[in-house]
Amino acid sequence: MAKDKGEKTSFQLKVPKGTKDWEGKDMVIRDKIFSTITEVFKRHGAVTIDTPVFELKEILSGKYGEDSKLIYDLADQGGELCSLRYDLTVPFARWLAMNQSVQSIKRYHIAKVYRRDQPAMTKGRMREFYQCDFDIAGTYDPMLPDAEILRITSEIFEALGWKGRYTIKLNHRKILDGIFEVCGVPQDKLRTISSAVDKLDKSPWEEVRREMTEEKGLDGAIADKIGEYVRLKGSTELLEKLQTDETLSANASAKKGLEDMATLFSYLSIFEVLPKISFDMSLARGLDYYTGVIYEVVTEGSAPASSATGAATSEAQNTQQAGKKDKKKGKAGADGDDDRSNDPSVGVGSVAAGGRYDELVGMFSGKTQIPCVGISFGVERIFSITKARMEAEKTAEAVRATDVDVFVMAFGGKGFTGLLPERMQIAKTLWDAGIKTEFSWKVKPKLPQQFKQAENGGIPFCVILGEEELNDGKVKIKEMGLKEGHPEKDGVLVEKVNLVNEVRRRLEDFNRRASGVDVEEITEKVAEASV
Amino acid sequence: MAKDKGEKTSFQLKVPKGTKDWEGKDMVIRDKIFSTITEVFKRHGAVTIDTPVFELKEILSGKYGEDSKLIYDLADQGGELCSLRYDLTVPFARWLAMNQSVQSIKRYHIAKVYRRDQPAMTKGRMREFYQCDFDIAGTYDPMLPDAEILRITSEIFEALGWKGRYTIKLNHRKILDGIFEVCGVPQDKLRTISSAVDKLDKSPWEEVRREMTEEKGLDGAIADKIGEYVRLKGSTELLEKLQTDETLSANASAKKGLEDMATLFSYLSIFEVLPKISFDMSLARGLDYYTGVIYEVVTEGSAPASSATGAATSEAQNTQQAGKKDKKKGKAGADGDDDRSNDPSVGVGSVAAGGRYDELVGMFSGKTQIPCVGISFGVERIFSITKARMEAEKTAEAVRATDVDVFVMAFGGKGFTGLLPERMQIAKTLWDAGIKTEFSWKVKPKLPQQFKQAENGGIPFCVILGEEELNDGKVKIKEMGLKEGHPEKDGVLVEKVNLVNEVRRRLEDFNRRASGVDVEEITEKVAEASV
Repeated sequence: MAKDKGEKTSFQLKVPKGTKDWEGKDMVIRDKIFSTITEVFKRHGAVTIDTPVFELKEILSGKYGEDSKLIYDLADQGGELCSLRYDLTVPFARWLAMNQSVQSIKRYHIAKVYRRDQPAMTKGRMREFYQCDFDIAGTYDPMLPDAEILRITSEIFEALGWKGRYTIKLNHRKILDGIFEVCGVPQDKLRTISSAVDKLDKSPWEEVRREMTEEKGLDGAIADKIGEYVRLKGSTELLEKLQTDETLSANASAKKGLEDMATLFSYLSIFEVLPKISFDMSLARGLDYYTGVIYEVVTEGSAPASSATGAATSEAQNTQQAGKKDKKKGKAGADGDDDRSNDPSVGVGSVAAGGRYDELVGMFSGKTQIPCVGISFGVERIFSITKARMEAEKTAEAVRATDVDVFVMAFGGKGFTGLLPERMQIAKTLWDAGIKTEFSWKVKPKLPQQFKQAENGGIPFCVILGEEELNDGKVKIKEMGLKEGHPEKDGVLVEKVNLVNEVRRRLEDFNRRASGVDVEEITEKVAEASV
Repeated sequence: MAKDKGEKTSFQLKVPKGTKDWEGKDMVIRDKIFSTITEVFKRHGAVTIDTPVFELKEILSGKYGEDSKLIYDLADQGGELCSLRYDLTVPFARWLAMNQSVQSIKRYHIAKVYRRDQPAMTKGRMREFYQCDFDIAGTYDPMLPDAEILRITSEIFEALGWKGRYTIKLNHRKILDGIFEVCGVPQDKLRTISSAVDKLDKSPWEEVRREMTEEKGLDGAIADKIGEYVRLKGSTELLEKLQTDETLSANASAKKGLEDMATLFSYLSIFEVLPKISFDMSLARGLDYYTGVIYEVVTEGSAPASSATGAATSEAQNTQQAGKKDKKKGKAGADGDDDRSNDPSVGVGSVAAGGRYDELVGMFSGKTQIPCVGISFGVERIFSITKARMEAEKTAEAVRATDVDVFVMAFGGKGFTGLLPERMQIAKTLWDAGIKTEFSWKVKPKLPQQFKQAENGGIPFCVILGEEELNDGKVKIKEMGLKEGHPEKDGVLVEKVNLVNEVRRRLEDFNRRASGVDVEEITEKVAEASV
């Protein structure tokens, strides 16, 4: 970078609309969420793929319906026309189509996507935001990858400390199709009726029925028949009930869907995921794109509507794209008057969503179809809920910006030299041992300043050097914040040659005591406290 | 994403020019490099900041001189004009200027940057590529942050297994300034002469002298005086020699630079970095932007010119921006005829670079200056060198795409059911224990297919289920690839209830044996082998 002298620029110091800098504790909490999720993906043998942040414009066009207007284009500076990616699914499908030797893969991708939407920063609706996708591509025996995805989903929310606080809503496109068929929904109304059904999570049946009949011109009797099905929720017993429903079983699509669900339920039972499942006949997630099971993770009542939920409304609807376009019919666009509405109750609690999409890759490859099933985690929403909870419980304060373990300091009376070489030497020894260490970058720092620096960083241990002690080959280790009466309250002198071991032992002990510096721990504590 | 039926698009299936998908082993090696570097940063108390991928256009303008033409702009779709970031330094300076309460920070940032340059894919010169920056902002006692940055640099290359294979070239802008002054270089020739000096790493003195005198019109006597200084290389003894040079010591700038260097050397000695340092008077890194120490990490002869080096030419010159503009004077641009040239010997071995820049933040804040010192690691170059070495040594094959530890399989004779529920149950038990596990997504997989899947994934252990053994409450653990004669060559039957412990014990043992599946280990081995 060159310094253009004389040119005192007076530009506006800000980030572009709808974007933000991530820093401090937010960054630490977010990173912890990412690494927790990644660890689960890897436990199941997933690999990651990193695609460019922009794609050829033509790759994205015709994929997002009316939402295409939200795509960011690069300026035409000569050469190819490109656009910033809108999601991670299209680049994945493009990659699969380009790499036809890859007939199966489990891949995850955590990366930013871009939408020129009306931002609502307080709600977390951003123009640049993270998506976290996991997809399985390939031809396997029925429902096995589907079951593993739901197992992975469950492992992730358990690992995030959401035990008992989330529900996986599950349905099957073929069952819904069958229901609409046997109830007599006309072919041209399928999409719009499905979209109405999908609103049952936030509107009462009467309202959805009114929309179907008055707005969408569906026969009232047909609506009532639909209503009898789509208001059903349950688990194995609901599945059994539907399997004995002769009208439904006579429909090929519904029959296939119910068979899939029976297989899936048996697998989920072995995987111990079944208790978290709600078979929810109103879950529709749009008509196009999905071809089999569909699911959505909700965390009912877990987020106060005013803060956490409000601050997290955008992400999960953004994920796995399907359904959005349909739901937004006629009112989509950058004007903000869409289903990512300003009403904080909209979409409360959906923190992950996905389903099976067997016909998408074919759109790119032209010939080869590769069946896929996937899920997208609303990581920024998960972040917002986690953070809001931590703030409510006052546990956020305990999150440290760094995880430095030791601060090396020195003290002395008159003629104090600062013991800089000695401090540096001790720091070097600790670094060599892999111990996270800092010291003051002052030649002669005052002792209170050094303690303050250690305190500000939330650093748990100090190694304190004094001239006399050093002459005896000793240094002092002091754990910060020990209570009056603790035997090591004023620190303990150890042999300098044993320093690394002495520090290590105390650090291990400190970490065992799990004194609230661990985000996972905090999240778990908060979760327990607020159940 | 919506499926637009009927619209069979015939677009070109490719990524934009100068970009690539990262996948497979490359992704694994790259991730390992990132995590190794990040670990060192964190050991020194660094935090990370994540800035948007695009900035307001005006933030970037006037920062890159002629290279500004390489900036990617977003299309004007209404609203603010934005550009993709060109490096990570300007966004960092912008962030510091926006957050004036932050008077000091150690931050790292690993992220993609964008340059509309002429790509040379085989050389790793990309339009989208990673930078990995570490910077310390704040006012401290002299040379302390500078010393720690060089210590961090050394720790990183040691951690990457480059022991003994890298040199940190070090110089000081103020010493160079002083030399030019005492030799009598006219003010208006300072930049261009400095730029010529910087070429001494790849051209003989005669050629550089010819450039100075013939091309740049410098007096031959002045050139000769410069030549006596800038051809010096060494360590403490060179510093001592310069300190006794009366001409130089009489110059205020040189005197200050030499004092800094003396302080720095004493610190580097304590940090045990001095043996890796080459005080190289020809290192110039451009005239603008840097105000104090400058450094560059080279790995002489470590990369064969035809592959690794060639494949890695772009990154390190791209880093820490300074000097580029100067060096490229009059020939920069998107035509490829710049210092990121097609000659694979250009810039061989520079894998990290940086220096002190005390006056940059003021460009943004207008008032507040925050002194900074930083380094940028050429991660894609480090990747290319690492990978080329691994390929040369045939150790790349050992890198696994995933790190799954256990493959659960089943076998049986006539009437074999596939034991799917049992396989799922065992997998679940292992996942619960945090053990990375896969099994075949087939109801009745054939045994050879299962072995093949385990082998293809390089999975070290199989858990094999047989009906009879299960009836006895036993399962078999088999380590793959054991040699004939090994007591567990054919696997060992263990109690099913002890499975987790039995697997854990063997995994720990396996990992201790460090059988070449670890990239760090491999890199180290390669490093040793090729010294």
